[in-house]
Amino acid sequence: MLNPILTLTTDFGLVDPYVAEMKAVILKINPNARIVDISHQIEKFNIRMGAYVLAAAAPYFPKGTVHVAVIDPGVGTKRKPIMIEAKNSFFIGPDNGVLALAAKNQGIKHVYEIANPKFMLPRISATFHGRDIFAPAAAFLSKGIRPSEFGPEIRNIVVPKFAKTVRKGAAFMGEIIHVDGFGNIITNFTEKHLKALNVKATVRIKIKNMELTLRLCKAYAEVEAQKPLAIIGSHDFLEISINMGNAAETFNVKVGDEVKLYRF
Amino acid sequence: MLNPILTLTTDFGLVDPYVAEMKAVILKINPNARIVDISHQIEKFNIRMGAYVLAAAAPYFPKGTVHVAVIDPGVGTKRKPIMIEAKNSFFIGPDNGVLALAAKNQGIKHVYEIANPKFMLPRISATFHGRDIFAPAAAFLSKGIRPSEFGPEIRNIVVPKFAKTVRKGAAFMGEIIHVDGFGNIITNFTEKHLKALNVKATVRIKIKNMELTLRLCKAYAEVEAQKPLAIIGSHDFLEISINMGNAAETFNVKVGDEVKLYRF
Amino acid sequence: MLNPILTLTTDFGLVDPYVAEMKAVILKINPNARIVDISHQIEKFNIRMGAYVLAAAAPYFPKGTVHVAVIDPGVGTKRKPIMIEAKNSFFIGPDNGVLALAAKNQGIKHVYEIANPKFMLPRISATFHGRDIFAPAAAFLSKGIRPSEFGPEIRNIVVPKFAKTVRKGAAFMGEIIHVDGFGNIITNFTEKHLKALNVKATVRIKIKNMELTLRLCKAYAEVEAQKPLAIIGSHDFLEISINMGNAAETFNVKVGDEVKLYRF
Repeated sequence: MLNPILTLTTDFGLVDPYVAEMKAVILKINPNARIVDISHQIEKFNIRMGAYVLAAAAPYFPKGTVHVAVIDPGVGTKRKPIMIEAKNSFFIGPDNGVLALAAKNQGIKHVYEIANPKFMLPRISATFHGRDIFAPAAAFLSKGIRPSEFGPEIRNIVVPKFAKTVRKGAAFMGEIIHVDGFGNIITNFTEKHLKALNVKATVRIKIKNMELTLRLCKAYAEVEAQKPLAIIGSHDFLEISINMGNAAETFNVKVGDEVKLYRF
Repeated sequence: MLNPILTLTTDFGLVDPYVAEMKAVILKINPNARIVDISHQIEKFNIRMGAYVLAAAAPYFPKGTVHVAVIDPGVGTKRKPIMIEAKNSFFIGPDNGVLALAAKNQGIKHVYEIANPKFMLPRISATFHGRDIFAPAAAFLSKGIRPSEFGPEIRNIVVPKFAKTVRKGAAFMGEIIHVDGFGNIITNFTEKHLKALNVKATVRIKIKNMELTLRLCKAYAEVEAQKPLAIIGSHDFLEISINMGNAAETFNVKVGDEVKLYRF
Repeated sequence: MLNPILTLTTDFGLVDPYVAEMKAVILKINPNARIVDISHQIEKFNIRMGAYVLAAAAPYFPKGTVHVAVIDPGVGTKRKPIMIEAKNSFFIGPDNGVLALAAKNQGIKHVYEIANPKFMLPRISATFHGRDIFAPAAAFLSKGIRPSEFGPEIRNIVVPKFAKTVRKGAAFMGEIIHVDGFGNIITNFTEKHLKALNVKATVRIKIKNMELTLRLCKAYAEVEAQKPLAIIGSHDFLEISINMGNAAETFNVKVGDEVKLYRF
């Protein structure tokens, strides 16, 4: 890799020096690395959110990209540091599920425990493996060290639990998998579910105890400002939005809330 | 362009994967691109604010820089994706005014509609043209594709409405065009207005119903901490500030509020 | 320096165009510069916090890195713009203490006033020396201009006041030097203090009027979720944390609060 791309996804925020320390470690080991931030504002300790955000972004990166994700409430415990070799990319982070969604979407080829101290900082702190283990591993990998040199191959990794959609009579049960910064409510329904229920111009949905009948739009601005709508979003999920407004606040819902999609 | 500079200005925030997806698309098309964030924290849907921030930063970038700005409440509607070839830079984004201020400051040479699907992602989502249209256009442009290849030349673009200052007897009427993160109140008055009113050491100003008589300083620290002052800011506008404090909060004013500048 | 690394630490936030203007100025002067953000969310005007964050991150960067820090409430006054040549890095910013901690940790070789207008922007604003003086100085330095060419050598610089730990009978008095985004309470005690008091498995500490008896852990997850603990953090300081929680909020403490460490 001539100018390898490394991405970072963390819950470190942007106030503290932590992200910069990871970048410094990477650039010291591989001065040719190009580092792209995916997000450092994953909700603290929210592995599922980190997994979602990484899985959303990863498909757009070039082949060979090395993704590092550190949402790591178990840092310093027995949870393993791992490196996943997937079909298009590499994923590095703790074995707590944060990597698994993105990696499985591509197809996992091999998983290795990161165990070889040769590819870690000389001193490993108890609380910051992002800097001391994951950043150096990513940098060495991007310099051409083979994945198998980092440690033994392992067979099972932790996979985050996202609700599967379930058919229930003439409806599907699903959940809110993400609320974005605009307040768009992202569900785990796709075009496939709409088709199966023969939904066309209008979506009937139940969130919490609210029943909503919404126009299925191609653009937010198809409804008036501050009016709700349904739309297939940029990651191919059914989203509930409010044109020029914040749907999640308006409907007072949050990630994990159950959503019911009716046949119209 | 050997290592072209591309800038990004959006209202996407830094929590979601959206900005990273744009960067991924750019780097996939042009691995030599160097991407600089101007801001991703433009207030949601605030085209005027995006236009101001882009226009403030653009003059400092090298010739040939490609600026992408996506504050795009009309995404998916008939508003056109455009590319502006200006005297020093290129500007890419929706035709809703967000690009016009920066581009006009340099002098506009040509405007093209971005219409050629060859320079877009294969699948265009309804809600994220930043990733699917604007990022690829910027990347292809930075690789040497000529602007005219992106689509037909167009003549009229949307220009954001910023209040002009108006002479009113022995005073000028203007407005607050930006409030920065320090709470500095940036007006659309310049040295020219001060000169025209023969203002020297002291500025008399009216915002909302407050009349303020302020020392015209060269440095915030010329007044005591927590005291207000007037100053010509770093973008050559007259600003109302509070030394070590937040003027916009203290005076409870916001962008768009009218400002009256008196002859002293 | 072939592809020199320049870092930025400011209190500018990420909403306004200010950070991007500094980057634009740097890239215009030295197109090969690689710019790494340390933090732009230092609390406004908080020189001590800027000094702490810069000093935490600097040791991880490669030799020759140029660090620019602009927390600069005295901009436009007589406080001098300075360039510190330290053992491993260069530090550029106002002479108000923000650079001194990081530089002293490495060992200071020379300090120069940045006075040569050849290495500044042609027009110096009254309020934004980050863009007009510090960014160009850093860029020219990274292109090979020798430090002594920027201005006269100076002997004394401002050093930020951090409390020293003080022995008091069978205890040490110290202070909270930083609260990070996770709410970890970072004190100025180290392993050395623990050893001197013969502290092993349990730490007894007093903050404000609370006496806490805490398990000294190697990992947050050694205690149950929402339970407090003590830990030597990633910068070798004693930290008070709450597993999966926010210690600073829970205990309602802030930077500068006194901490007493007891012999157990």
